[in-house]
Amino acid sequence: MIARTPQTFRNQHNIDARILHEVEEIDLARRRVRVHQLDSGRAVGWEAFDHLLIATGASPFLPDVSGVEAKGIHGISTLQSGIEVRQAIDQQHPQRAVIVGGGYIGLEMAEALVLRGLAVSLVERMPQVMGSLDPDMGALVSDALRNIGVSLYLEESLQSFDVSHGRVQAVITDQHTLPTDLVILGLGVRPNAKLAAEADIPLGATGGIQVNERMQTAVEGIWAAGDCVESFHLVSRKPFYIALGTVANKQGRVAGINLGGGYATFPGVVGTAVSKVCAVEVARTGLQETEIRRLGWEYVSAKIDSTTRVGYYPHAGPITVKVLAERGSGRLLGGQIVGIEGAAKRIDVLATALHAGFTVQDMIDLDLSYAPPYSPVWDPVLIAARQAAGLV
Amino acid sequence: MIARTPQTFRNQHNIDARILHEVEEIDLARRRVRVHQLDSGRAVGWEAFDHLLIATGASPFLPDVSGVEAKGIHGISTLQSGIEVRQAIDQQHPQRAVIVGGGYIGLEMAEALVLRGLAVSLVERMPQVMGSLDPDMGALVSDALRNIGVSLYLEESLQSFDVSHGRVQAVITDQHTLPTDLVILGLGVRPNAKLAAEADIPLGATGGIQVNERMQTAVEGIWAAGDCVESFHLVSRKPFYIALGTVANKQGRVAGINLGGGYATFPGVVGTAVSKVCAVEVARTGLQETEIRRLGWEYVSAKIDSTTRVGYYPHAGPITVKVLAERGSGRLLGGQIVGIEGAAKRIDVLATALHAGFTVQDMIDLDLSYAPPYSPVWDPVLIAARQAAGLV
Repeated sequence: MIARTPQTFRNQHNIDARILHEVEEIDLARRRVRVHQLDSGRAVGWEAFDHLLIATGASPFLPDVSGVEAKGIHGISTLQSGIEVRQAIDQQHPQRAVIVGGGYIGLEMAEALVLRGLAVSLVERMPQVMGSLDPDMGALVSDALRNIGVSLYLEESLQSFDVSHGRVQAVITDQHTLPTDLVILGLGVRPNAKLAAEADIPLGATGGIQVNERMQTAVEGIWAAGDCVESFHLVSRKPFYIALGTVANKQGRVAGINLGGGYATFPGVVGTAVSKVCAVEVARTGLQETEIRRLGWEYVSAKIDSTTRVGYYPHAGPITVKVLAERGSGRLLGGQIVGIEGAAKRIDVLATALHAGFTVQDMIDLDLSYAPPYSPVWDPVLIAARQAAGLV
Repeated sequence: MIARTPQTFRNQHNIDARILHEVEEIDLARRRVRVHQLDSGRAVGWEAFDHLLIATGASPFLPDVSGVEAKGIHGISTLQSGIEVRQAIDQQHPQRAVIVGGGYIGLEMAEALVLRGLAVSLVERMPQVMGSLDPDMGALVSDALRNIGVSLYLEESLQSFDVSHGRVQAVITDQHTLPTDLVILGLGVRPNAKLAAEADIPLGATGGIQVNERMQTAVEGIWAAGDCVESFHLVSRKPFYIALGTVANKQGRVAGINLGGGYATFPGVVGTAVSKVCAVEVARTGLQETEIRRLGWEYVSAKIDSTTRVGYYPHAGPITVKVLAERGSGRLLGGQIVGIEGAAKRIDVLATALHAGFTVQDMIDLDLSYAPPYSPVWDPVLIAARQAAGLV
């Protein structure tokens, strides 16, 4: 996970990378930042800049409930937070874990903890896990979690943590008390935009720092990229906050090119994401039903069951594809996939079609690959698009 | 493989499907076809039509060399020809097989015969197998064949077959005599367009029947679809012959809708295809270098090595992606992929991008899915596109 050390940055790239140094304040008028050392707490002083890149990332959301600071409760965001959970498991041999939140982090931690032999419960406020899927597709993921032995507590809200001697003993919801040795918080992240906000660098309505296509903030010479900024959603044509490595990586590259005197743009995202629960793959792109309704758009929905390979081919297995398209125009608005190995990466065809502005009628003609080990004669995403085209 | 029997056609669809009946002649003036029974040889007589759909498919190319009609030599095109090879293996227990031709059929039969324990040799006239890939990518497939124990005889031409008592004994090339018990011909297919040509229904330069986007021939009321027709290549904007199930299936659907009084079109193909040799997956789409040069277009080429998953994730393995783009404009012209499980289906992103008319610069911004089990942070197809964009 560590691509480069400070030494590599210095020796190979001539970059002075100072770890454990925190910027406390940005002084826009005098073009400088105030820095202190994190380990010693010592003030380093003011550092001048011509250009400044804010890449402060995001932090796991901590619910404002009693006991949230107790030992045994872990948010998962950095390499270090992962190391801490692993050390807790190796050293304290917890038997039971409760995960609060059924998003990507919740899913992946459920898999990891089940594979390490813990009894895992998952609490989710919504009637389904994976809130970025529609309820009917999310239900398939709930089934996948139950099938690997996870106890799901859906439509339950976290109320507080039962703490004894500074260590968590139980998760208390509005319906249950769930005794536990370990708690994982998977309630999403919030952009670390406070530093920027305090310097009057404008944030967007999503809470992320506002940037243009070149990753410039509203202030000349101040750039921002990654999980601390808001993106532009190419389907809704509205600001959108998404904290994913692939987006952050592309934004960082664009910011770097521009900072270096070049020219590059990052037009936006379509909201593509993938995850998995053991053998079940999950993928989504574009808008989901609630988002489309919020925009006031009308849509059709097609959901089909197919197979990842031709049915007679060994290791063929189920795949469910859902496609959403604008009523009338047939413009593709989004897609969701749940299935076995080979299912999820097909989301990339739908993502590419969203970038292209394709209608579901356009998609019927796509010359996608076919051979029995790879796909039915019609790829499942095309079967779904064809069905949607019939409803437009 | 048999989706519907004549009984199903009759009972469920009210279609009179007559198997083992062959049309010998199309009489356009009197709108009728002359039919005889294949098993008895008996003439059935003339059948009248209002609309006629020609779906005569394609046949394996038989080289004009001595001994080609001998027993033990098999072309592979129909379910029946596959059954015959399997029966020959089960009943005659051949030890050695020679495959003539290194295309899809050659590759897939090499895998099948190696897995059944035969010593397999493959003869190919070109310096590489998989002529639909560029030589550098084809070389990776040649390696894959050698790695499963196939003896490759590249740049060798078939001269004749050594035959004794009506049965093949050896394949004779311009350089070797290869003793064998079984021969597979994988020299491609030719459209079965003779029946149409004899009725003066125009063929194209590729030898396939000419059709428009609705799958109409040049003659009113006469339609054609599948391996007997020529397609339109959406990248070269020229007629193109491709005999693949997925294309035939889509064309048949379009012809059926139009014949039934509806309206549908099949705009064309981008030449997408996938195959595999045991654990090595192979995929291609769009134009290859020889095709681009023949069109007189200038191009850039980028080839990158990456991994199917993030490098640290279990079962990550090599993938090589090559992308070809028009010099100057950067318009994507084609792509090729060779790699382990999970590699080939990524060709669908390139195929969709070809349909969209994307440049490689456009592709850099594609919001493709990323999670460690599925892909590096930049999907390998995007890494290749990014490299190509730097060369445009």
